[in-house]
This record gives sequence, C-alpha cells and structure tokens, in this order.
Amino acid sequence: MESSSFDNIRASRVEGTEVYNRTGEHLGQIDDLVIGKRDGEVKYAIMSFGGFLGIGEEYHPVPWDTLTYDQQRGGYVVDMTSEQLREAPHYESQKEPDWADPAYGRRINEYYGIPPFV
Amino acid sequence: MESSSFDNIRASRVEGTEVYNRTGEHLGQIDDLVIGKRDGEVKYAIMSFGGFLGIGEEYHPVPWDTLTYDQQRGGYVVDMTSEQLREAPHYESQKEPDWADPAYGRRINEYYGIPPFV
Repeated sequence: MESSSFDNIRASRVEGTEVYNRTGEHLGQIDDLVIGKRDGEVKYAIMSFGGFLGIGEEYHPVPWDTLTYDQQRGGYVVDMTSEQLREAPHYESQKEPDWADPAYGRRINEYYGIPPFV
Repeated sequence: MESSSFDNIRASRVEGTEVYNRTGEHLGQIDDLVIGKRDGEVKYAIMSFGGFLGIGEEYHPVPWDTLTYDQQRGGYVVDMTSEQLREAPHYESQKEPDWADPAYGRRINEYYGIPPFV
C-alpha cells in the first residue's frame, strides 16, 4: 500500500484525524475539507485548534499539500510549530469565511508560501 | 460566481446535496466523497440511492467528473437514467469496499467509461 499511489479514502474518514508536527507535538485535528466544486481538488484541510467544549475553538484552513499522512502515527504531519499555526489565518466557528472568495484563498496560500489557487 | 473557477466549498456541505438527471428526475443524494490522500483529488461522490429508513440503502460511487453543479436546482446533475445508476457498481452499507483497491476503482471507471485513476 505504501508504494501505491492508489490511496483513496472517504472524506468523512479524514475528518477527525489528528495532526502533529515533526517533533511529534499534537497540533489539533481535521474538522472538514474544502474542495473545488469544479476542479475536484482538495484545497484545504480545516484544522480545529484550541478551545474547550466548543468555546473559543478556532478553525485554521491549512493547504492540503502541506499535510503528509504518517502511517505509523495514524495522523497527518505538518512542518509547523504550534506558534506558526496559531498565527496562521483562522476564524471562529460563528464567523465562517466565504470559501468562494479568491482574496481569502490568496491570504491563506500567501501565509503558507504556496502559489495561489486560480 | 458562475464565471469564476474559484468555487470552493466545504466537503460537509456537499454531503446531503441532491442529485438529478438531465430530465429533472431525482436520483438520490450525495452521502460522502472519496478523495486521494496523496494527490488531493476528489475521485468519487458516493450517492445514496433507494432504501427506506436506512434499510436496503445502496451506495453508488460516481466519478466526480460526471457530476455538474446546477446552481438553479441547487443540486448536481448527472447524465444518466435511474436504470443506468441502478446497474452501476454499488454496495450495501454493511459492505463498504476497500477504496484503496485499484481493481475496484477500475471497475467503477470502466462502467462510467472514463480512464482509470492511477
């Protein structure tokens, strides 16, 4: 399986998967995905981060390409410190951004140093 | 919005969206998506079809490219009759296929006449 590129998974299985950084620190978990309706590409994983019992919880859209699945850990790994994630573009649960707004997309990609999606 | 290719949407918003055919017949709804973990591509929309109160419900993985979003209808349109969908590869809720099995993927794509994913 490791050597195959055929690694399909149900989107709802990705949701809830834990995210760590390279030092093994637990950063949060994947709450949802953002996909392009027409091009069918997974653009962002929305990470939930912080908060307690849903209060003060923040959502951080992380470009999909920055996530690597770690079979051994059973979770995704991003090459970021928790401070870098904390400062990344995010929103509170009541203030969901407009995913179809190109300006918001550019802001995210800029922070992560990847080319904007068009 | 219609003219923009920036049409991102949350995966969990796609789930539950109704699916029609070109004659306006209601075929079912989208239950989940299947994505490639590494390539980040949406491969299939899993349509739920038939059944009553969860009994006898069937799941039909439909290649994402066969779905077109119809803004006016607020749902996806596929160019299939309900018979064609009924005969397409499907499974019952208790018998979920192995999404990472290339042979299963080939079977689906073959039915829909699209090149296999590699």
